[in-house]
Amino acid sequence: MGLRRNLKLIVAYDGTGYAGFQRQAQGIPTVQAALESAIYKITREEVGIIAAGRTDSGVHARGQVVNFTSQTRLREDRFLSALNAVLPEDIAVQSVETVPLDFHARFSAVSKTYGYYLYNQAIRPVFNRNWGYFYHYPLEIDKMIEASLCLIGTHDFKCFQATGSSAKTTVRTINHCEIERRGSEIQIIINGNGFLYHMVRNIVGTLILVGSMRMTVDRFQAIVNSAERSLAGPTAPARGLCLEEVFY
Amino acid sequence: MGLRRNLKLIVAYDGTGYAGFQRQAQGIPTVQAALESAIYKITREEVGIIAAGRTDSGVHARGQVVNFTSQTRLREDRFLSALNAVLPEDIAVQSVETVPLDFHARFSAVSKTYGYYLYNQAIRPVFNRNWGYFYHYPLEIDKMIEASLCLIGTHDFKCFQATGSSAKTTVRTINHCEIERRGSEIQIIINGNGFLYHMVRNIVGTLILVGSMRMTVDRFQAIVNSAERSLAGPTAPARGLCLEEVFY
Repeated sequence: MGLRRNLKLIVAYDGTGYAGFQRQAQGIPTVQAALESAIYKITREEVGIIAAGRTDSGVHARGQVVNFTSQTRLREDRFLSALNAVLPEDIAVQSVETVPLDFHARFSAVSKTYGYYLYNQAIRPVFNRNWGYFYHYPLEIDKMIEASLCLIGTHDFKCFQATGSSAKTTVRTINHCEIERRGSEIQIIINGNGFLYHMVRNIVGTLILVGSMRMTVDRFQAIVNSAERSLAGPTAPARGLCLEEVFY
Repeated sequence: MGLRRNLKLIVAYDGTGYAGFQRQAQGIPTVQAALESAIYKITREEVGIIAAGRTDSGVHARGQVVNFTSQTRLREDRFLSALNAVLPEDIAVQSVETVPLDFHARFSAVSKTYGYYLYNQAIRPVFNRNWGYFYHYPLEIDKMIEASLCLIGTHDFKCFQATGSSAKTTVRTINHCEIERRGSEIQIIINGNGFLYHMVRNIVGTLILVGSMRMTVDRFQAIVNSAERSLAGPTAPARGLCLEEVFY
């Protein structure tokens, strides 16, 4: 055993088979439990990992960031290989780095980028079925882009917060939101300093109303201004959401 | 019930959860059983479907073609929607077409295109784990392309036929073979008038020997000329293979 180190991991996972990131009761599969169990197998240490974003059941990550302290002397590249050898095939660590002891995956984060993927096609996708929302009605991308501009900047996003959740403040800053069609796939990439519970999925659900011409851009703007959850659209399915990157 | 029609379906499936295309004993999941069961739910007819290629366990398809005769009066587009509503989520019919009664998905086929996908990267893939072969050693694409040119044309491909199989003739014509790197993914796209059992996977396994500098292009050529299975490389894993398209 060596000195106590703070280790930062970037982790990708297919969230389909997990009841979310956060550890729950014994026997319920979570990404946190899988990671902590893999770390235990290698270090024999029972660590408590901290994640940048506690993704919901069925939500994915390409760039989740976690940290934990460990006394392992393993070199970072060896630890990376060892972890990927014992982790299940739907989770893979992308990098291992020793960081200052005051680094905190959640509190040190400056911003996060989420991606939401829509399959806007006539026939349901087979290969990507778990990583996007199959929405087969026509969508006017230009309208969705126009509406998304209302999100940029610092606003009270209470209208997009899941009912019943209790964040101290519902004011967040959205730095950018890009919506692009690539063939039948529509990518919605959104970066902000923080996100309320279900915020991205509620934004997407409301943008779909705009894209399907059931809501005007003016109405979308009014909803953002209203801070009233009941006015916004439905929550888009978890499977379309992916935590892409966390910035520090 | 109406006249007897011959129906041609283009089918995509994720082969991960299936013991191959061809129907087996009761209880073993096969693509054929899933399709026939879906057709039965809609038409109440017990059909026997014919497939262009009987893909192995774990092999995928984006463009498998099947045909069967039916007395259904359902319009093609309705039949398509009905099938996709009852099929499991890892199988989706892409099109339904009424064709002449003498159309036979296998015997009428002029050529088939298979794709084989390699993930040539340091860390195993998470999202595409079932649809490609994770091969993390360096591969010289140029050497693989050079070797693949030996395959073009009409040859006795006995060297790439699975041991113990008994095709009437082992002569086949390969029309084209394209190998391309897109980021960490290597795509091997091969079209021919027919393929011996395990032929594509054995070609890929041998091309990997060339790409990893364990076999020269001259040696690859000599193996093709030899018609000797024991000289060729190992069979690449099923999960990397996909039946892309069938031409008539």
